[in-house]
Amino acid sequence: MPAPVATTVTSLMSAIADVGTDPVRGGYSRPVFSVAELSLREWFLSEAAARGLDTETDRNGIIWAWWNPGGLPLRDAVVTGSHLDSVPGGGAFDGPLGVASALVALDLMVTRGVRPRRPLALTVFPEEEGSRFGRACLGSLLLTGAMDPRVAAGLVDDDGVTFAELCSANGLEPAYLGRDDEALARLGCFVELHVEQGRGLVDLGGPVAVASSILGHGRWRLTFTGQGNHAGTTQLADRRDPMIPAARTVLDVRRIAHVHRGARATVGRLVPTPGGTNVIASRVDLWLDVRHPDDAVTERIVYEISEAAASAALREGCGVSMVEESLSGSVDFDRALRDRLRVDLPGVPVLPTGAGHDAGVLAAHVPTAMLFVRNPSGVSHSPAEHVEDADAESGAEALADVLTDLLTSDAPSGDTHSGDALTTETKE
Amino acid sequence: MPAPVATTVTSLMSAIADVGTDPVRGGYSRPVFSVAELSLREWFLSEAAARGLDTETDRNGIIWAWWNPGGLPLRDAVVTGSHLDSVPGGGAFDGPLGVASALVALDLMVTRGVRPRRPLALTVFPEEEGSRFGRACLGSLLLTGAMDPRVAAGLVDDDGVTFAELCSANGLEPAYLGRDDEALARLGCFVELHVEQGRGLVDLGGPVAVASSILGHGRWRLTFTGQGNHAGTTQLADRRDPMIPAARTVLDVRRIAHVHRGARATVGRLVPTPGGTNVIASRVDLWLDVRHPDDAVTERIVYEISEAAASAALREGCGVSMVEESLSGSVDFDRALRDRLRVDLPGVPVLPTGAGHDAGVLAAHVPTAMLFVRNPSGVSHSPAEHVEDADAESGAEALADVLTDLLTSDAPSGDTHSGDALTTETKE
Repeated sequence: MPAPVATTVTSLMSAIADVGTDPVRGGYSRPVFSVAELSLREWFLSEAAARGLDTETDRNGIIWAWWNPGGLPLRDAVVTGSHLDSVPGGGAFDGPLGVASALVALDLMVTRGVRPRRPLALTVFPEEEGSRFGRACLGSLLLTGAMDPRVAAGLVDDDGVTFAELCSANGLEPAYLGRDDEALARLGCFVELHVEQGRGLVDLGGPVAVASSILGHGRWRLTFTGQGNHAGTTQLADRRDPMIPAARTVLDVRRIAHVHRGARATVGRLVPTPGGTNVIASRVDLWLDVRHPDDAVTERIVYEISEAAASAALREGCGVSMVEESLSGSVDFDRALRDRLRVDLPGVPVLPTGAGHDAGVLAAHVPTAMLFVRNPSGVSHSPAEHVEDADAESGAEALADVLTDLLTSDAPSGDTHSGDALTTETKE
Repeated sequence: MPAPVATTVTSLMSAIADVGTDPVRGGYSRPVFSVAELSLREWFLSEAAARGLDTETDRNGIIWAWWNPGGLPLRDAVVTGSHLDSVPGGGAFDGPLGVASALVALDLMVTRGVRPRRPLALTVFPEEEGSRFGRACLGSLLLTGAMDPRVAAGLVDDDGVTFAELCSANGLEPAYLGRDDEALARLGCFVELHVEQGRGLVDLGGPVAVASSILGHGRWRLTFTGQGNHAGTTQLADRRDPMIPAARTVLDVRRIAHVHRGARATVGRLVPTPGGTNVIASRVDLWLDVRHPDDAVTERIVYEISEAAASAALREGCGVSMVEESLSGSVDFDRALRDRLRVDLPGVPVLPTGAGHDAGVLAAHVPTAMLFVRNPSGVSHSPAEHVEDADAESGAEALADVLTDLLTSDAPSGDTHSGDALTTETKE
């Protein structure tokens, strides 16, 4: 048992503030297994080692750091953690705040002399953002078997590197990717702390909230094809320019989302090929992100967008195809665990979120909960994302309170071992 | 005087068919001073050396290969050539056909025993497409002083490399970029052979045409700014998403171009930043290409587009700025030289073009003409661009006929030494 380490979330976050900064976009670009994300993994392993934790990286690339001073069997474990990868040009807190807070929560418990009755694991999940291979929560989807590991192995990043190749280069065996029953069997419950990604806590005035649910969420890729040609010599009447239906679809996405109350639909990525100023594109790929609390409405929205895109393409003599890259149903977190957190943290509000998380994937398998920490900008996936120092420490203290209860009580950690969640298989 | 070399355009083009192929876009990606373009420059220098030509690369990166068997003073020279760089995913012929045809035309003249009364130069111009630094005809703009060399030196490619840095890395001194009066003084007339980039010759049934004019042409960059944010947590009402006005502007560009008879306006390049699927963009850059025979109409079109973009941005709470990257007025080629080519090539049709060329820039300084070679696809800036073997040889023969006349006659090569053209200074 090492001596208590006196750290703060702020000091841990400062230590990684220079890793993976993006000089073009601002903020951080830390795609999974990039130099930046690998450096953050090393940082986490060394912080865990400094606390005397046993660490392992499992066959899906998830890091587990075990606090088990009683030498108990590794089952019914309380697990907390988040991710270290980021979107391109993302903020400092989305992911790392949950990892740093887990370390500090442990320090607080050690200082407080907590004697755990079950093991605690601190975890780091890979490719939570899906910013490299297009599949958010790739690590937890593989762990739980919600994604076919052969499909995952074949995913290709923008540089043409497959996930299998990247795994091999980083010491993982692609053939061993996929559902890990042994790892799942150790999991008793999962609690993820995360920066809030909206203005919920700003309006309510507190530093911490408990999550109620995650909005259903899917990603689709639309590919418009036309005839690449010279921008100067090709008369308007002779064109089959896929930028036209792609642009019309961007506007249709907004129009259709407006019709469905509570819907969010976004096109944040659009790539014309070949992408020259004096060249009519031959092809335009755009990626669609749709979220709604009611999975049937999500399906309806996507159907309406696909119809609008087909009609826009037809009018320009272009083609269009649409591929579902991922789809997760809405998740209601385990009610008993959520209620228990509300007892542990009196007066803390309960908020839904529109953002996807590994906690949403794990909720289909174990009682799962989330804590949100106030973000005064209300902005996330942007350099403008922010957490005040005092709020970050309040978050870690709240996490320590919750973990202390879960580690020391006799009570079961949640309602059920399947939650209310449904995560559908990713389809190609 | 070397022995006649028996080459064909087809065999020369075959020798470079593997250089700079683009496995993603198809066709060729040969940006200026890339490995591919540098390899083509080496190829040209070795072909020139095999013919005993003296070669030099001038201070703007233009290659000159001199055929001057009589050892005449280097003035009133007949100059022919084109470029070796390409758009991303471009065709095989746009540029290299003019270079290969110049070499073969020389071979034909040597075989025919032509005795030139003035020097001939074969030239290769850099960055004709503007695909790396955004300025088409960069080499000829610098040579003629139509572009401020300090502006050129500061241009930045997509990898953050300045043109000055790239010049230094390739043996050019950035401080010596710019108007080259010595080089201009040697130029008597310029004839560029080029693949046709529309369907003009397909419809007329011949392999070769003489150019009448080049459509006025400009490029503008529009930057829409909003608030980058999380695609899941940000409600529609709270968004300032620059993709919306950018998409609306793409459609407005098409609508406005339709109103102005003969206009061409294109958005072939559009880049959202940060460009993540689950991220509302904070910024979208799009590049606008506009062409019209009447420069006042081009100006009107661009004004209407700027108004539409400003209004679209305002409606979304976004900002927009617009920068002119280049602007060249319409060019009518030297009438006397054109008429002389029609005498040299009886029955050959005269066609305008919508594509810009170094010949259009040089037309402001010396009598300039162009020959077009039939492209049965009517498609250019695309892998689908094509020239039949027999047409390529016909083009080189036509070029040899024209050069023979210009090199051996007493008559002056054109009407004037300023043409009818006006190329405006590039503004930042």
